[in-house]
Amino acid sequence: MTPSGTTSGGATDPAGQPAWELLLPAAGAPARRRGRALQEALREAVRSGRLAAGTRLPSTRELAADLGVSRGLVTEAYEQLTAEGYLRGERGAGTWVGGAVRAPGGSGGGAGGTAGADGRGADGRGVRGPVAGVSGPEPGVRVDFRPGTPDLSLFPRSAWAAAQRSVLARLPHRALGYPDPRGLPELREVLAGMLARRRGVVADPERLVVCSGVAQASTLLGFVLRARGLREVGVEDPGSPEHGRLFASTGMETVWLPLDGEGLRPEPLAASGVRAVVVTPSHQFPSGIGWSAGRRAALLDWARTVDGYVLEDDYDGDFRYDRAPVGALQGLDPERVVYAGSVSKSLAPGLRLGWTLVPGELLGEIVERKRTMDLGNPVLDQAVLAEFVTRGGYDRQLRRCQRAYRERRDALLAALAEHLPGTGVSGIAAGLHVIARVPARFGPPDRFLARAAGAGVALRSLEEYGTARPADGDVRLVIGYAHLAPSAIAEGIGLLAGAVG
Amino acid sequence: MTPSGTTSGGATDPAGQPAWELLLPAAGAPARRRGRALQEALREAVRSGRLAAGTRLPSTRELAADLGVSRGLVTEAYEQLTAEGYLRGERGAGTWVGGAVRAPGGSGGGAGGTAGADGRGADGRGVRGPVAGVSGPEPGVRVDFRPGTPDLSLFPRSAWAAAQRSVLARLPHRALGYPDPRGLPELREVLAGMLARRRGVVADPERLVVCSGVAQASTLLGFVLRARGLREVGVEDPGSPEHGRLFASTGMETVWLPLDGEGLRPEPLAASGVRAVVVTPSHQFPSGIGWSAGRRAALLDWARTVDGYVLEDDYDGDFRYDRAPVGALQGLDPERVVYAGSVSKSLAPGLRLGWTLVPGELLGEIVERKRTMDLGNPVLDQAVLAEFVTRGGYDRQLRRCQRAYRERRDALLAALAEHLPGTGVSGIAAGLHVIARVPARFGPPDRFLARAAGAGVALRSLEEYGTARPADGDVRLVIGYAHLAPSAIAEGIGLLAGAVG
Repeated sequence: MTPSGTTSGGATDPAGQPAWELLLPAAGAPARRRGRALQEALREAVRSGRLAAGTRLPSTRELAADLGVSRGLVTEAYEQLTAEGYLRGERGAGTWVGGAVRAPGGSGGGAGGTAGADGRGADGRGVRGPVAGVSGPEPGVRVDFRPGTPDLSLFPRSAWAAAQRSVLARLPHRALGYPDPRGLPELREVLAGMLARRRGVVADPERLVVCSGVAQASTLLGFVLRARGLREVGVEDPGSPEHGRLFASTGMETVWLPLDGEGLRPEPLAASGVRAVVVTPSHQFPSGIGWSAGRRAALLDWARTVDGYVLEDDYDGDFRYDRAPVGALQGLDPERVVYAGSVSKSLAPGLRLGWTLVPGELLGEIVERKRTMDLGNPVLDQAVLAEFVTRGGYDRQLRRCQRAYRERRDALLAALAEHLPGTGVSGIAAGLHVIARVPARFGPPDRFLARAAGAGVALRSLEEYGTARPADGDVRLVIGYAHLAPSAIAEGIGLLAGAVG
Repeated sequence: MTPSGTTSGGATDPAGQPAWELLLPAAGAPARRRGRALQEALREAVRSGRLAAGTRLPSTRELAADLGVSRGLVTEAYEQLTAEGYLRGERGAGTWVGGAVRAPGGSGGGAGGTAGADGRGADGRGVRGPVAGVSGPEPGVRVDFRPGTPDLSLFPRSAWAAAQRSVLARLPHRALGYPDPRGLPELREVLAGMLARRRGVVADPERLVVCSGVAQASTLLGFVLRARGLREVGVEDPGSPEHGRLFASTGMETVWLPLDGEGLRPEPLAASGVRAVVVTPSHQFPSGIGWSAGRRAALLDWARTVDGYVLEDDYDGDFRYDRAPVGALQGLDPERVVYAGSVSKSLAPGLRLGWTLVPGELLGEIVERKRTMDLGNPVLDQAVLAEFVTRGGYDRQLRRCQRAYRERRDALLAALAEHLPGTGVSGIAAGLHVIARVPARFGPPDRFLARAAGAGVALRSLEEYGTARPADGDVRLVIGYAHLAPSAIAEGIGLLAGAVG
């Protein structure tokens, strides 16, 4: 236990021991809020350097006793922060502060906090997550399992209309003028708070740029990195081909980097020579894995070593069904990670409204690029979203979608078990899609897909998302379920089974 | 009189003479509508080739008698189309069909109509018109005459709110999905109709791309032309420096091209070697001239000769106070002119909503570039604008602004005459700004501007918009008046006179 400093309120007592009780500011609050407060306080202590890398944490039993909380609450906090890469643990041996975190503007465990134009070279890139063009019914398609679209009927029209009315009634005239290319100040404040709370990011409103979605965040970053001399971006294999297309529009070529069950494999990444990658660590698209804490830390180590950048496409980080979502990678090193998200999965892609959190080193160039692309996002929409989040509408919407999507995921798994027995579903219980591996006896894959199409079932094969061509004969599918009612899911899998059985 | 063909409804009688009465489809309508119908019919006849270049038109007296309309109505139509470059006339000698017009998809006088992917080389560019960042009050500024912003208090909040409600009530769910990058089909239809009617453009909805304003239209075009190998764009001198900045973001350098009182001077343009220019022919920014018909025709000749493109920034073409606005250049050759406009001056810049009409040759590249930039404009805003235009709100708004801005222009001219006698105001009675030339006795210019600033009067000097540095000692100002109430205008000019007198 070697606390690194006593700045910023000093979580250290006179004997040099961390004053653990300072981790629990809301001691009188209900358990759920206390659990979240503990996690947030731990994260902040690690980030600020008050808990330095290598610091050994008390056992869950000890800390629970110190804080007067249940042991389960501490265990959950340790597990959550271990998954996020702030802590590392070995079964039976204890829990330490990990070495992955890097404070904003600093290069080590310092107190940090200011923007860091510290002269580091450059790179990094970003590209759009899973964008599917499923916007309307297609002839011959009875059930469309292609991923990428939320249930558009869940869009909260009444609450949105109320926010629109309120905004038009209160917005000062001058707000209708040419916008700040970074976004409406009130929205940046509100989003920074929401993202810090929900996604565990380091969200300085001054580093948040409102943009039209992850796609634009990717293009903005691509142009900036290309202007700094980078020519290639690494993307996950399997991954979204859209990432590569967006970067290609900025003059950057794509290098596929292989994944395994934990995340990007470190050796091929190191050997690739790229200095920028686009990743989906919270819920990898399309494989559905959550990156391990080790791979999250290794990626950040790599970025620091090569003076590189990571674009974190947090395309569906709001949707996890079995536990709290893993915090974003950006929280570990906001100077190396460009974070990007949007309302496309939580509200509607048609709103074209998203955000990116940008390292200080790149901020000025990203903002100027945003300015020349469109002068900034439409003002009324931004004010409406700020109003909607502030009124609690966004949290309500996420809860509503969570319930609906979890139910649909369950319906899909049940239908697969009933109609295509032996099918394995991989990936964490999260997001808007699953990977299904249908046994070879229903194949071979080409015939399977052709028969599915013939039966009016639109599907995407995992092979469309990368370079792997497994020869085991199993049929690997990327199945989107969020936009389909449970009855449509059951119908679709039934049609599929009838066609291939 | 040599009619070139008898296609498309044949405005030619059996003796080979144009059947002039076909020019007046709405013979029973009120005079104002009949005048507009005559102009539209004449334009269409020239565009389609039914009236070939060189065709001599009947005298105004003859045609008025043939059509049973007043001679003034015919005279007005001839003048209007001459100003737009469709016709050319010599005093006392008659009126001919000009050679400037080129039908869409064709290279001469053919009937045209289809998109022309006819393999022409490439270039052209575009850049944002007058963009000022006047979004809020600045310390020490009492009256701000800097141009570029409309009166934001004229934004029609109630009508906009009504359109928002209506859209949220009726829009089908699937419209909330990922948008068509070209724009919402219903908006493209509505805008094409509105622009054809108001601005005399050839507006095929299939060639109209909704974008976030003239700035984005410029950047889109810049990227497309740069990818085709162009490296330079010509801009008007004086002109908006923003044009050059936007093109610079796409990798294109700016070449200043001198204007005179009629438009771009042909010789320096020809000698420059550029193959793309950005122009503001309807109301040149900042000089305030309207390009002459001769220069409009000469520019199109140049574009055809060098296989080049023209970006027409129609930033304030809706506002003309002494006569009907001159039709857009694009109407003369939609295969060489990229037309761009927006609601920034008519509604609010904060909406970030505009349009570009694109030659068939460039359309696919522009749309793909729009897709990678942002996947398309926000859907709800597009639907609201479509609703607003369809309900007549847009025309009402333009009439409202016209009245207000004409009154403010008059107030400015009166205040200048009273407080700074001898000041000359140049340019047509149009738009949101004037050029004022204050006599040297109030100068010299540097002292004049310093004293104005000291008195809290924010001004822009014409020298900020180009390379000219006249040595006559007069003070040349670009004065924006549209965003100021008449009382503020009078107060500002009074303050100014007090400071420099």
